[in-house]
Amino acid sequence: MGGQDRPRRPTVSDVAATAGVSVKTVSRVINNVPTVRPELVEQVLVAIGELGFRRNDMASSLRSGRRTATIGLIIEDLANPFYSVIAATVAKVARSYDTHLITVSSEEDPRLEQRQFLELCQRRVDGLIIVPAGSDHSYARPEMEMGMRVVFLDRPPSGILADSVVIDNARGARTGVEDLLAAGHSRIGVITDSPSIYTARERLSGVRTALTEAGIPYDDSLIRVGVTRPEEAVRVVADMLDGADPPTAFFTGNNRITVGAVRELCRRGHDAALTGFDDFELSALMPRSLSLIAYDVQELGRTAALRLFDRIGGDGSWPSETVIGTRLVRRGVELLKT
Amino acid sequence: MGGQDRPRRPTVSDVAATAGVSVKTVSRVINNVPTVRPELVEQVLVAIGELGFRRNDMASSLRSGRRTATIGLIIEDLANPFYSVIAATVAKVARSYDTHLITVSSEEDPRLEQRQFLELCQRRVDGLIIVPAGSDHSYARPEMEMGMRVVFLDRPPSGILADSVVIDNARGARTGVEDLLAAGHSRIGVITDSPSIYTARERLSGVRTALTEAGIPYDDSLIRVGVTRPEEAVRVVADMLDGADPPTAFFTGNNRITVGAVRELCRRGHDAALTGFDDFELSALMPRSLSLIAYDVQELGRTAALRLFDRIGGDGSWPSETVIGTRLVRRGVELLKT
Repeated sequence: MGGQDRPRRPTVSDVAATAGVSVKTVSRVINNVPTVRPELVEQVLVAIGELGFRRNDMASSLRSGRRTATIGLIIEDLANPFYSVIAATVAKVARSYDTHLITVSSEEDPRLEQRQFLELCQRRVDGLIIVPAGSDHSYARPEMEMGMRVVFLDRPPSGILADSVVIDNARGARTGVEDLLAAGHSRIGVITDSPSIYTARERLSGVRTALTEAGIPYDDSLIRVGVTRPEEAVRVVADMLDGADPPTAFFTGNNRITVGAVRELCRRGHDAALTGFDDFELSALMPRSLSLIAYDVQELGRTAALRLFDRIGGDGSWPSETVIGTRLVRRGVELLKT
Repeated sequence: MGGQDRPRRPTVSDVAATAGVSVKTVSRVINNVPTVRPELVEQVLVAIGELGFRRNDMASSLRSGRRTATIGLIIEDLANPFYSVIAATVAKVARSYDTHLITVSSEEDPRLEQRQFLELCQRRVDGLIIVPAGSDHSYARPEMEMGMRVVFLDRPPSGILADSVVIDNARGARTGVEDLLAAGHSRIGVITDSPSIYTARERLSGVRTALTEAGIPYDDSLIRVGVTRPEEAVRVVADMLDGADPPTAFFTGNNRITVGAVRELCRRGHDAALTGFDDFELSALMPRSLSLIAYDVQELGRTAALRLFDRIGGDGSWPSETVIGTRLVRRGVELLKT
């Protein structure tokens, strides 16, 4: 590439000087050598950021320039309709770039995610989109330094710098709870996935903000976390309704939990209000009214895919996070009839 | 391999003698050379069948024996929940064999299916499961002769001999229509996908059998084919109900069409009976009663995956078709409340 007539780009030596460390330390950080002290890693990453050091530019010369016209997508769970739509949308963008997409599932196992990342890299894909299961993605650093382009989807990376595209989880959840509060509910049962998952954590934080701003104490007995499958949500809703002072409304943290809540509320013919995160295909046919925090899933997939192809096409700008907005929608079969 | 102490296996010469053609012609058929006359292809395939000529055994010696511990899955449409469940189930079986699964979508395009087949073969997967979009799969013959193991899922192959796992489409549809007839319906609106698709064709044939056996004339004005998306089904149901002599019941050929029919019937508050092929996750929450032809989607995926791993493990028996049975189930939210 050379870079004739272009402004001189910072080198590894510049990074070392700015960070106040040796070139060897910079190299170790770039190559993810685990023995570097965390403070030094931070110093080097900050220096890289300040200088706009484009690591991929340097690294891409280390790779043979040959493209495979293939990208990879690592998702958590092939059977979740949310991920199917993501996969289909990414496939569509890939096709428009005449590129093949291979999709693999991490089955929500961080070790499997890492193994599949490495296997896809060995297959020499041009780039990867990851919906991360794990909370430490530093395993990706050496391959990224060698030129692999990676975009994180739905959850930001941790331990590395990379592009990500996420939903505005906290604000969406906050809006949903504010809507229930405005309707006069003050005992709101909150059911979410484990807070170890980024999206659940962010949504819980939005719930807490809404409650705090309304001056309603955060009542632990109304918060149930670690719920994943609809059948678990059925049991949690039943348990809360059978309690001494049951909630008059529920806030459910994702589409799987919402579906379980609808099931139990309908079985009982119970009229508790229900607001959930995520829209889903058959929400318009649900046999009761509900409110949902909706967003454009296709936009999420498309934005991540376009960002990846920008990177593959040579965009060496600093990694960024793109946030997809949400909106509150009313659903249920009664609305169809009006 | 040699085959010492085992009964002598038929050779290419035996096939040629039985078929009454030259060895060169047999070789051309095996290698999918397009210039062989169709009658000769048939003669050779019949001879291969009669003799139990195990083509993969011969061919596998042509491949390097090295395994990649990876299998491929080519499906039609990543966004259809039916295929997501298939993909997740195949992934689970693959994991139990410590094998990586890569999934690609043919986007219902036969040419893309063929291209992706060849690309996955180039990536040296150990075997492939295909939900075929196209109606001619002879493109797979050369790779299969070279030892590639292929199992067809949901639709049988055409133009080649290979394992397949399919649903009992005709019998399921017949049972569904018989159930509507037994309830007193004689004007049944039938809405299916294009008969160019194997499953739609089989299901239509089951419908026809049920009507014929009940002595009810096959009324073309009650049959609408080529319907794929739910929105199209909405319009077709509306159109039939607005006709001069509307049906009192509907038979819908797949889950996508059923969902559209539920939507339009609910919007109108219309009480026409509804029976559809395929169960779907939220059927128990549908705001009206409906009957569905259900089957075990996971069994479909699991059976195909296990068959593929049998082949990869050396099973050289003659290709077979496995048929997964169906059962009629009642669904709708009213059932939850009892």
